[in-house]
Amino acid sequence: MNSVFNLQSAQYKDKQKNRGRLLINCPDQPGIVATVSKYLFQYGANIIESNQYSTNHEGGSFFIRIEFECPNLQEKYKEIEQNFQVVANDFSMDWRLQLVSRLKRTAIFVSKELHCLREILLEWQNGDMMMEIPLVISNHEAAKELVESHKIPFYHIPATKENRQEAESQHLKLLEEFEIDVIILARYMQILTPNFVSAQPNKIINIHHSFLPAFVGARPYDRAYERGVKIIGATSHYVTNDLDEGPIIEQDIRRVDHRDHVEDLKRTGRSIERSVLARAVKWHLEDRIIVHGNKTVVF
Amino acid sequence: MNSVFNLQSAQYKDKQKNRGRLLINCPDQPGIVATVSKYLFQYGANIIESNQYSTNHEGGSFFIRIEFECPNLQEKYKEIEQNFQVVANDFSMDWRLQLVSRLKRTAIFVSKELHCLREILLEWQNGDMMMEIPLVISNHEAAKELVESHKIPFYHIPATKENRQEAESQHLKLLEEFEIDVIILARYMQILTPNFVSAQPNKIINIHHSFLPAFVGARPYDRAYERGVKIIGATSHYVTNDLDEGPIIEQDIRRVDHRDHVEDLKRTGRSIERSVLARAVKWHLEDRIIVHGNKTVVF
Amino acid sequence: MNSVFNLQSAQYKDKQKNRGRLLINCPDQPGIVATVSKYLFQYGANIIESNQYSTNHEGGSFFIRIEFECPNLQEKYKEIEQNFQVVANDFSMDWRLQLVSRLKRTAIFVSKELHCLREILLEWQNGDMMMEIPLVISNHEAAKELVESHKIPFYHIPATKENRQEAESQHLKLLEEFEIDVIILARYMQILTPNFVSAQPNKIINIHHSFLPAFVGARPYDRAYERGVKIIGATSHYVTNDLDEGPIIEQDIRRVDHRDHVEDLKRTGRSIERSVLARAVKWHLEDRIIVHGNKTVVF
Amino acid sequence: MNSVFNLQSAQYKDKQKNRGRLLINCPDQPGIVATVSKYLFQYGANIIESNQYSTNHEGGSFFIRIEFECPNLQEKYKEIEQNFQVVANDFSMDWRLQLVSRLKRTAIFVSKELHCLREILLEWQNGDMMMEIPLVISNHEAAKELVESHKIPFYHIPATKENRQEAESQHLKLLEEFEIDVIILARYMQILTPNFVSAQPNKIINIHHSFLPAFVGARPYDRAYERGVKIIGATSHYVTNDLDEGPIIEQDIRRVDHRDHVEDLKRTGRSIERSVLARAVKWHLEDRIIVHGNKTVVF
Repeated sequence: MNSVFNLQSAQYKDKQKNRGRLLINCPDQPGIVATVSKYLFQYGANIIESNQYSTNHEGGSFFIRIEFECPNLQEKYKEIEQNFQVVANDFSMDWRLQLVSRLKRTAIFVSKELHCLREILLEWQNGDMMMEIPLVISNHEAAKELVESHKIPFYHIPATKENRQEAESQHLKLLEEFEIDVIILARYMQILTPNFVSAQPNKIINIHHSFLPAFVGARPYDRAYERGVKIIGATSHYVTNDLDEGPIIEQDIRRVDHRDHVEDLKRTGRSIERSVLARAVKWHLEDRIIVHGNKTVVF
Repeated sequence: MNSVFNLQSAQYKDKQKNRGRLLINCPDQPGIVATVSKYLFQYGANIIESNQYSTNHEGGSFFIRIEFECPNLQEKYKEIEQNFQVVANDFSMDWRLQLVSRLKRTAIFVSKELHCLREILLEWQNGDMMMEIPLVISNHEAAKELVESHKIPFYHIPATKENRQEAESQHLKLLEEFEIDVIILARYMQILTPNFVSAQPNKIINIHHSFLPAFVGARPYDRAYERGVKIIGATSHYVTNDLDEGPIIEQDIRRVDHRDHVEDLKRTGRSIERSVLARAVKWHLEDRIIVHGNKTVVF
Repeated sequence: MNSVFNLQSAQYKDKQKNRGRLLINCPDQPGIVATVSKYLFQYGANIIESNQYSTNHEGGSFFIRIEFECPNLQEKYKEIEQNFQVVANDFSMDWRLQLVSRLKRTAIFVSKELHCLREILLEWQNGDMMMEIPLVISNHEAAKELVESHKIPFYHIPATKENRQEAESQHLKLLEEFEIDVIILARYMQILTPNFVSAQPNKIINIHHSFLPAFVGARPYDRAYERGVKIIGATSHYVTNDLDEGPIIEQDIRRVDHRDHVEDLKRTGRSIERSVLARAVKWHLEDRIIVHGNKTVVF
Repeated sequence: MNSVFNLQSAQYKDKQKNRGRLLINCPDQPGIVATVSKYLFQYGANIIESNQYSTNHEGGSFFIRIEFECPNLQEKYKEIEQNFQVVANDFSMDWRLQLVSRLKRTAIFVSKELHCLREILLEWQNGDMMMEIPLVISNHEAAKELVESHKIPFYHIPATKENRQEAESQHLKLLEEFEIDVIILARYMQILTPNFVSAQPNKIINIHHSFLPAFVGARPYDRAYERGVKIIGATSHYVTNDLDEGPIIEQDIRRVDHRDHVEDLKRTGRSIERSVLARAVKWHLEDRIIVHGNKTVVF
């Protein structure tokens, strides 16, 4: 892997070696915070930042994200994780414990438009997006040179309506082989099959080139031009099997005016798409997102 | 009318007495700017600001807005206007000449939610929205005290599905009597009839409480909440007979997050609605808008 | 007081009768969250939202804001507050417990420019800014009619360099008499004496008409014009005895361009000033702000 | 040069072959628009977009930017330019005529922080920033691999206080040899000498990592952190011999909060810096900027 990144990465892992994150989602009831904070305290953990939110609408759900420092976390981690299951059972928790020093492993899928891939590589090179990128997969050759110049393996897997099953079985094999945690669809212009999507719940991050739910589906910039909107946008969301209907992670917009023809909207849109996708990916990498129903809690 | 406003208004009219605006929309061809600028030059007019835009997409349309100073404009105005018709005919122009010192006369329509009305009165009182407000019309009594405390006549005209025709004939009579130039629907929650709308082309400004074309129609904040969007918006547009489909003048947005329930979206939305409507009204008052098909050119 | 507001206020107080807020600032150490959450749990309180943040820079400070629902809070409140002092002592806490149903009592100070006062009254009338306004104080008569039309007592206290001491003793008497919790300087163009300021720590909210620390002091719009900036801003901060140097609560900006002369910057600025001040006041009313050194933590 | 860019570039040049831009700055007087538009009309030019602005403050200056299509512009260009001098003399014009198809030649200066360079290369690769980049100059080796992977010559010229004169004479030689039109300081952390700056009036574009005039000079993020600002920014400006005081082209900001330590401000700042610099460079390339005194008119 890229040598600049390797150095940054080693420094980061060392600096964060005692840092952990605990994310919980469960039915709300009094006493959860007391129990969880007492549990962490037993291990000598100091809570650095915590965000908690409960909804008393629609049945009462409880969400918390805790970031903590714990001496010798590397050694204690397994024990903290195993014993927490008892607490979790008491409160019917959906939960995960993450070592900050354990970088997530990401596969980027891309087609011919490369601006989102370039943004991700740029942020990654700057050390502003901490993850490992074991591979990039594409149905075209366009990204090959760019990807390989970053010392990242590039897999060209042509995908069409006809060979979708076969292509996806190659994808799945690679995802398994490289132990991938997150899939980023950086303007990957192919529909994924329900099987593929179901196998990666809340793990596939897409960028849609409109301000959802406006302009669901194809050609959003053309339709924005026709409608004469004064603002265009982009939306990053987790992929589900309802097209452009998955839980929204982040959205942003930019002003346009009467002088902007479709090509100008696309150019401006590229800027929005790449910054929105980058933010969504960062929040995912920092374990800031809890999916609840078809929505996200972003702490 | 309000005494503070009267003073500001008199000063403004005096300061702007030689200021005029010319707006033109016609098929594009070489020589239009040359001809028009020569025409104004003959009368001693000095162009202060001009914005021009042509589209070579879709047939080629030409748009220009010229703001000029002309000595003794009050006396010359009629002549400039009459003689320009010759130029206009040569180029098949759709055009208008406006005296800046002649304030537009505005009727505000309102129902029970008063935040947009309050914003307009606030800006008007500050001297930041130059217009006359000869009357406010409402289908409820809620705004009566507020409006009358500003020394503006208030007309309570109940409007329901059943009496729509009758109510609108009262509206039309008032609009004529008070020589109204612009109608502002400041959250007026009644459908207008096609006849009424057709009689006021590009004169009725509405505020819709969503980021169009997302959430066309009723209950946009409830639907935004259900979808889990991260940004909500508002849209000001000219009213046509297609619901929420008229030419968009201005849109804006604000960030929301998982903590915001429907009531919070509405509260945040009120802030967006009033600032978007205020900007759209100002641009209309400053003759910055040319409607072209179902879009606006905002100079 | 205003009758519309009275009705909203009664409904709000009833809805929020079991809602409390606990704010804490103390030296960081493990176990604080565990202790505090256990304490609240003993009283049957359910934490609705909590935000916590610790800094391991500069010595380690711990900040938390907890919003909770507790059955029969009105009756238990005193006891919860008294007994918490034991916990507080253990951790050297700077803390406060607030009943959400107990509206803060606000005095607004204003001079001749009324846009910020109008914004506050607008939000208050909409029910979007929950507080009581027992009085408005001004060194001019300009706001008298506006204030009294809202059924709020208006006190005209002329203030000049010469009579500053005398004017302030009148101010202090009124603040005491009306049991004022918060002072909003809504473009009050008088310097306050060190004594006055010291007596109201973190209780006086000011709006400065620039993007601090740019253009500290007088005539910021003129200086922004001269410098040719492309964005202007406003800053709301707590008043300290260093002019324009108090802890910043909120800032915002808007784009301007070469066409904007000083008067236009002022007009645009008025919009920014009023929305920034309104947000800062709302956050203060919602007990979202903890002052730490010369900075704010805004949860 | 880069092959992807070469193709885009060839297509662009062909598409824009008849497109020209005329920029004028002169004392205001009636008749300028009439004269200039008549002049262009004589050559069969059709004005596509024009923006004009006059100031009657401070003596009266006139500014216009005209973009036009003219059949066979390549052949007529020289003649249009030569003959326009007569018109220009009559009105004491400061003016320039530009062929859109003639791409500007840019030298990028960079030190060790590469995010701004990466952004420019990204936009350039996307075809969203039309220019030629004959070389990149740096006082460090850090950018060498990145630059050369884009097939752009890289010149490593160490620069210190001691060898400044010598380094700059090498710079000047390269600028001349490569016929450079624009210099982009993409976080180039060296002071330029007055001689160097004076030789490149309004040709050197810098990015400063603060919202000027806040935090002029060194360590702006540290100082922003200390002051507790809620928004940080970046400013792109033309370089003059007053440090950070040159004409501002573009500024932008992003929200930060109490959780952001200096490192976080820098990370967020990198995003702002690169987008602000990219916009400023694009506007320069599109001939949208006229410098007037110490300000810019950006059309």
